[in-house]
Amino acid sequence: MSLADVLARIDSDLPAATDRLMELLRIPSISTDPAYAANCDQAADWLVRDLQSNDIKAEKRATPGHPMVVGHVGDSGPHLLFYGHYDVQPVDPLELWQRAPFDPDLHETENGTIIRGRGSSDDKGQLMTFVEACRAWKAVHGTLPCRITFFFEGEEESGSPSLVPFLEAHKDELTADLALVCDTSMVSRGVPSIAAQLRGMLKDEFTIVGPRIDLHSGHYGGPGLNPLREISRIIASFHDPETGRVAVDGFYEGVHEVPAEQLRQWQNCGFDEADYLKSVGYSQPHGEQGYSTLEQQWARPTLEVNGIWGGYNGAGSKTVIPSEAHCKLTCRLVGDMDPDALRDRIRKHVEDQLSPDAKVVWDNDLEGSRASVMNIHRPEFEAARGALSDEWNREAVFTGMGGSIPVVGFFKDILGMDAMLIGYANEDDAIHSPNEKYDLNSFHKGIRSWARVLDALTRS
Amino acid sequence: MSLADVLARIDSDLPAATDRLMELLRIPSISTDPAYAANCDQAADWLVRDLQSNDIKAEKRATPGHPMVVGHVGDSGPHLLFYGHYDVQPVDPLELWQRAPFDPDLHETENGTIIRGRGSSDDKGQLMTFVEACRAWKAVHGTLPCRITFFFEGEEESGSPSLVPFLEAHKDELTADLALVCDTSMVSRGVPSIAAQLRGMLKDEFTIVGPRIDLHSGHYGGPGLNPLREISRIIASFHDPETGRVAVDGFYEGVHEVPAEQLRQWQNCGFDEADYLKSVGYSQPHGEQGYSTLEQQWARPTLEVNGIWGGYNGAGSKTVIPSEAHCKLTCRLVGDMDPDALRDRIRKHVEDQLSPDAKVVWDNDLEGSRASVMNIHRPEFEAARGALSDEWNREAVFTGMGGSIPVVGFFKDILGMDAMLIGYANEDDAIHSPNEKYDLNSFHKGIRSWARVLDALTRS
Repeated sequence: MSLADVLARIDSDLPAATDRLMELLRIPSISTDPAYAANCDQAADWLVRDLQSNDIKAEKRATPGHPMVVGHVGDSGPHLLFYGHYDVQPVDPLELWQRAPFDPDLHETENGTIIRGRGSSDDKGQLMTFVEACRAWKAVHGTLPCRITFFFEGEEESGSPSLVPFLEAHKDELTADLALVCDTSMVSRGVPSIAAQLRGMLKDEFTIVGPRIDLHSGHYGGPGLNPLREISRIIASFHDPETGRVAVDGFYEGVHEVPAEQLRQWQNCGFDEADYLKSVGYSQPHGEQGYSTLEQQWARPTLEVNGIWGGYNGAGSKTVIPSEAHCKLTCRLVGDMDPDALRDRIRKHVEDQLSPDAKVVWDNDLEGSRASVMNIHRPEFEAARGALSDEWNREAVFTGMGGSIPVVGFFKDILGMDAMLIGYANEDDAIHSPNEKYDLNSFHKGIRSWARVLDALTRS
Repeated sequence: MSLADVLARIDSDLPAATDRLMELLRIPSISTDPAYAANCDQAADWLVRDLQSNDIKAEKRATPGHPMVVGHVGDSGPHLLFYGHYDVQPVDPLELWQRAPFDPDLHETENGTIIRGRGSSDDKGQLMTFVEACRAWKAVHGTLPCRITFFFEGEEESGSPSLVPFLEAHKDELTADLALVCDTSMVSRGVPSIAAQLRGMLKDEFTIVGPRIDLHSGHYGGPGLNPLREISRIIASFHDPETGRVAVDGFYEGVHEVPAEQLRQWQNCGFDEADYLKSVGYSQPHGEQGYSTLEQQWARPTLEVNGIWGGYNGAGSKTVIPSEAHCKLTCRLVGDMDPDALRDRIRKHVEDQLSPDAKVVWDNDLEGSRASVMNIHRPEFEAARGALSDEWNREAVFTGMGGSIPVVGFFKDILGMDAMLIGYANEDDAIHSPNEKYDLNSFHKGIRSWARVLDALTRS
């Protein structure tokens, strides 16, 4: 029996693998909204049963939040831990979906067949590429090539509050030689990519409180302090409008310039800047002046506003000066930026901007994570790069990533475990947006890729 | 039979008058929200029946929007038209109400008994002061002292779209010698007030459109244009943060300084600035520097933001760069400011601020009205001032008003009819806010005031 047999098995089993993914996609496991807690539990149960059907010792483990799924198989060879998450983003605005988000289907497009549905790309579809690779391997060989631990969480889209305590409580069980993570994109369609650095994340939320009650804008318009104007002025003050730089004092502490050699590699990694911008309706990049689009996305920090609300937003008009205005924000961190120090700086910036009679109230329930740089000098990275290049007939590249995968930092800090991030998503997958999809080709070749990577990591 | 008999009748009938008002307050006639259209109709029917019960020939008149109520009585003496509106503001945020907004009651406070409920002050309670004065007059005298037309609309809180066509179509029927309006406040508790000038109003609403779809703030944070940041910057640009002045080019065209003599009168009209500010949690006025609080409220124009929304506002966080951000705004106009010219100036200001790749979409369904100055040299004004002074044992004053009552301008422009605005609301009535109330004392002495005014205007 050979790798070719496993790949053939993957090809012939693709319709069944797709059906299994569809089952998982039908479960609305939105972790951030407590209304879907039972569905998160249901997704965890589905995964436990699916792993068990492949002779993996799998269990659902309770946490104060949504459960973890942990599975073990094998007892010789290198110990790999595969991480994915079964929870998904909220689906609003629902009216923009062309098909109900939890009624997945296969759909033909000019770029080939796609799997439509919330979580198809982030991260259920990607997670299942590894599970299906293992299923095919087992079917052909009767066993897996090494010791593998499966570790799925259900809180990735809501700040992973249970993750650190769980890792700390199960250090011995979860520490492997290397973690594999499938939650990232390819830098360009058909270019296999290993993410070599990730941005960190800081979340915060604040409310500006002005008058004691909502006011009539006739009676108080003029002398009245308006929290909507106040919050707009504060948000506008976050950035220098000329340079696009964040104007919070000390924001860039710990940010390093990208070495020239790395920049050169990025310039040749197949990233199509014009297509990346045009696909969402941009004619130019809008970030910091003096940095390329890829640098803005992978190597520069951001302070981004994700939600603003206050006052009247119904039909018609209402002549109100509201008592409160609200803002949700997230920062992306790079280099050695410290999320705790950054939170303090942003809060001080906001407090320094406040008008007399305005107050700010912070949500103290949100977390931060540092940026991560992968240890690409380990031999597994070169082995995986070769395996991916073979599958995609295209040299695999080491890329940066604009997103944040905090678990990578926790694996390193708590378990001392390096991670290797390989994903098959495309930029147009619309993750976190209406009409999320995953290319059937990503799913199929993703499964094949993992089989090749498993082979490359365990061939001695 | 004398005025004293009418006043005595008002006193003895107060419990029944209060019960009638409660009936009207129970009808949720929110005009701006189409879901309450049937309730607006119901409020109109209630008023028709109530007028008819007082031998007034009253009818509900259909419009393309909510119906008008028109009633006529008498055929000699001066012809007065009384205007009020039966529609009310929306009630959100509902959770801040101490009692359901459409379940009115009497409630004891340290400032006396109050009538609680949406519309108790604006404008159902005020409207009924005149109706009840007429009822008492009729009960005592068997007839009313002059020809009176009752004219109630149901779209005042939603821009009065049917008002101008209705006035134009019924010029002869609705043109009286003088309009009486009860929709204004007293300048301070217990100080009877006749509003001598009103600010005008301009409403507008816009959407900033950035990327074609909602984006992931990891994948696009940096190079991505964020409509939330864009709209915040634009809103912040509306005002000069140093002076509090509106920074839209040409905004102050048509604004006149208040004559020194008028300013002196205002300074002595009983307005308690500290109380006015403190009652809503302010320690200082927040409008244009160099102008008193009363000037900022009565004599200076404003550009106020009444609602902002965009992105995620649910539980937890969502790392999204939304495709759109929205803003509702209103301006208060003074002097000779032209609402149409002002709309153009504001729109140009917004368009001039737009970043590349950002678009603005305007709501073209919103209207404007000029400021109004009353003709206080007519003898009726001095007669009414005397009547009010008698009732309240306090010299009645001519005041400005921060609010806008567009019907006053339409009466003048379309019917050539002056208006006299007398109201008994207090600044703490929380109109347009949760927990709206009307002092029972305002209701009682308001009815008595109208009886005295009718007497003063018809005594010859």
